[in-house]
Amino acid sequence: MLHPVILCGGSGTRLWPLSRKQFPKQFSPFFGDESLFQAALRRHAGAGFADPVLVAHTDFRFLAMEQAAALGGATPTILLEPEARNTGPAILSAALWLEAQGKGDDLMLVAPSDHVIRDVPAYLAAVAAGREAAEAGALVTFGITPDHAATGYGYLELDAPPEAGPAAARAVTRFVEKPGRREAEAMLASGRYLWNAGIFLFGVRRVIEAFRDSAPGMLPGCRDAVRGASRDLGFQRLAEAGYETVPADSIDYAVMEKAGMVQTVPMSCGWSDLGSWDAVWREMPRDGDGVAVLGGVTGIGCRGTLLRSEEGGPHLVGIGLTDMAVVAMNDAVLVAPMDQLETVKQAVDAMKTAAVPEAESFPRTYRPWGWYQTLARQERFQVKQIMVPPGRQLSLQSHVHRSEHWIVVAGTAQVTIDGEDRLVTENQSVYIPLGSTHRLSNPGKIDLHLIEVQTGAYLNEDDIIRYEDIYNRS
Amino acid sequence: MLHPVILCGGSGTRLWPLSRKQFPKQFSPFFGDESLFQAALRRHAGAGFADPVLVAHTDFRFLAMEQAAALGGATPTILLEPEARNTGPAILSAALWLEAQGKGDDLMLVAPSDHVIRDVPAYLAAVAAGREAAEAGALVTFGITPDHAATGYGYLELDAPPEAGPAAARAVTRFVEKPGRREAEAMLASGRYLWNAGIFLFGVRRVIEAFRDSAPGMLPGCRDAVRGASRDLGFQRLAEAGYETVPADSIDYAVMEKAGMVQTVPMSCGWSDLGSWDAVWREMPRDGDGVAVLGGVTGIGCRGTLLRSEEGGPHLVGIGLTDMAVVAMNDAVLVAPMDQLETVKQAVDAMKTAAVPEAESFPRTYRPWGWYQTLARQERFQVKQIMVPPGRQLSLQSHVHRSEHWIVVAGTAQVTIDGEDRLVTENQSVYIPLGSTHRLSNPGKIDLHLIEVQTGAYLNEDDIIRYEDIYNRS
Repeated sequence: MLHPVILCGGSGTRLWPLSRKQFPKQFSPFFGDESLFQAALRRHAGAGFADPVLVAHTDFRFLAMEQAAALGGATPTILLEPEARNTGPAILSAALWLEAQGKGDDLMLVAPSDHVIRDVPAYLAAVAAGREAAEAGALVTFGITPDHAATGYGYLELDAPPEAGPAAARAVTRFVEKPGRREAEAMLASGRYLWNAGIFLFGVRRVIEAFRDSAPGMLPGCRDAVRGASRDLGFQRLAEAGYETVPADSIDYAVMEKAGMVQTVPMSCGWSDLGSWDAVWREMPRDGDGVAVLGGVTGIGCRGTLLRSEEGGPHLVGIGLTDMAVVAMNDAVLVAPMDQLETVKQAVDAMKTAAVPEAESFPRTYRPWGWYQTLARQERFQVKQIMVPPGRQLSLQSHVHRSEHWIVVAGTAQVTIDGEDRLVTENQSVYIPLGSTHRLSNPGKIDLHLIEVQTGAYLNEDDIIRYEDIYNRS
Repeated sequence: MLHPVILCGGSGTRLWPLSRKQFPKQFSPFFGDESLFQAALRRHAGAGFADPVLVAHTDFRFLAMEQAAALGGATPTILLEPEARNTGPAILSAALWLEAQGKGDDLMLVAPSDHVIRDVPAYLAAVAAGREAAEAGALVTFGITPDHAATGYGYLELDAPPEAGPAAARAVTRFVEKPGRREAEAMLASGRYLWNAGIFLFGVRRVIEAFRDSAPGMLPGCRDAVRGASRDLGFQRLAEAGYETVPADSIDYAVMEKAGMVQTVPMSCGWSDLGSWDAVWREMPRDGDGVAVLGGVTGIGCRGTLLRSEEGGPHLVGIGLTDMAVVAMNDAVLVAPMDQLETVKQAVDAMKTAAVPEAESFPRTYRPWGWYQTLARQERFQVKQIMVPPGRQLSLQSHVHRSEHWIVVAGTAQVTIDGEDRLVTENQSVYIPLGSTHRLSNPGKIDLHLIEVQTGAYLNEDDIIRYEDIYNRS
């Protein structure tokens, strides 16, 4: 069996404002209703694939579980990293976890969750081509046939250009770091170089041995983290005591560049890592002037330009723009030329330094019980929309500084106030006095939406005393 | 006495999204807390000035009255046009109204409400210089000494460049339409041309006679409109029957270009008509790179650029922009190069054709009783913030399709439901069942803010039956 291991730990800021620390890009639907993470799950499901193993940050565990559940496929195993430590420890921990489940002789296919692959059959054909090599003990990496002299990726060197015809695994003679422009052009011209896409295929026990040989410092901590893992609701929580001793490093530096028997399968599968907004523009349908639009947009006289108004965003008017990226959300807007998008990261850092909340906070906040979104906030009141899916429940809690009005606008709520239960249905309201212990849950079969109006002198999230919590947060 | 006549009927869309049909630019605070309209009122108050006469569109009567009241100066007379018919009928009606008040022998100073004048003493000196000519029977227009070859204004021709030293009225030899670039440059070089700023000074009876001589078609309708004017609360409502027969035309075309004894006073008073966003940029403080910012903005590597996030707008990040205007509001964003801002009007037309509400609607809607702003709207519910100043009262009304929850977040409301009165104060709520007659008023001394949550299958403003209304709207 082939075990897909999907890495969900990234927190890219180069696609700000849609991708932020609080809501990284793999969970966003860039090109329709499905997120990049969901698309990654879907292309690793079906014949030949075992149920997937996800490695995710603890902050996004419910989001990952919810998006996986929405696909309706196999229930994934979700390994939670106490903190992100790059791809090496994530992959090694997944391998050790698979070994502990008695899967040491199987193969594992490691794939990031935030890439785009347009030609899935070509991708799966490349994976199939890599199997034999992996079964024979190779560490297989997948190499993208370059179509331009990119300076943003590492490269894999071959001894000769790949043959035409069906893909086959080839030895990698060298790993090349992100090159300069001139070097990239020379590599493109030679035909002997592939982009390193960060997708790997190898035996479970084989890669553990490779880590032991090439990165021995990683093994004890990861082993402790996996052995000490605790089951928490549906998640496998890697033990902090072990994981925090592991050096953070990528599998490329830690293992692949040092190990023997490293092979690659060249592939042309419409791959993109969506590393910045110009990559998103390239993946979107464009009109004859090269203009790609999403959402409420009026564009006049633009060329080679991306105009996106994300869901719930403002109406965006772009006039006479050439080679620009404009991304508008209801709380944040980015305007930049396509050739200066590497500065987005610097802009996010500048906002962090200036304590601009939009640098990292997302308008909608996901919680184990659903989500909330602030509609308005002024000096002594705040209005939120709250959504609780069927069967979910908020913690039993109280507040010291605020009282709350809840108006149910869809579905039915069960509300407990100071020990008394009541049902509150569409178009009914309930008042939560300051200091009372209260709990909200959705006992029904459809999503519960309510409007919460908070009043008080202090309205931050940290005014909360939790008494009980089914998500183990109290 | 000098009667200021302030024209408030403009509805410029060239400053979209801040200026829209529902909230034209004269009522916006572009450069601080005061609107352009309020600044216009202030510079025409004090020694030598009678109480002002405003000519406004009926839609903005309460906004004009409220902004005038907030200044705390003289109570203006507000003449309401049933519909805008350009400056000719507005000015003629104001003159006829003044004549009817026994002021036919006085002077009137006509000024738009949406211009900027930075050097008010220079402006008032020019007005003083124009008085003698106006008292001698001249029709005086004020001419701005040009500082660049503008193609967006009409010009006034003099027989020779104006003398240095104190301004004095001079004969206008010719009115020149908006010129092409080359013609504008030649006029600038000659020194004999001034921008026509649309500011006028003349005797009340004198200008009525000038209209009679040059635009006889305007007089009967305007006379009927003024004679038939009805007092409505604090407003003078010009009679529709008369006004709608008047040909729409500017005073320039209708009178000034044809009349004798037209003089001009040259002035350099930091005038701008804020005709487009580059003019706003020019009026704002700018850093060494020519970048002007307002609100929550992060700019990196920009030059000669305007970055505005209006009140309540999203955080705006601009990277590497040169000579661009970016204006962000919570419901609409404009991005355009400075030299293509004339296309904004075309973009607004395109949005109107596509039924984009943000083309004309403003996030906050002003009513005689205060304002409301939609915070969220989805299929079966809507959340609004409502503000009612002390002493104001909404109509007695009912709805066929929606019920409402009101939560008071500041101040105290008096709420009448099906004939029963109650007081609802901060942190209390009340429910308005579908079909019940209800009324909201603010009996207190501070602004009342409440959050309204509407639920129902149809949530548009036209689901309202009005039984009584102190603003005569039932």
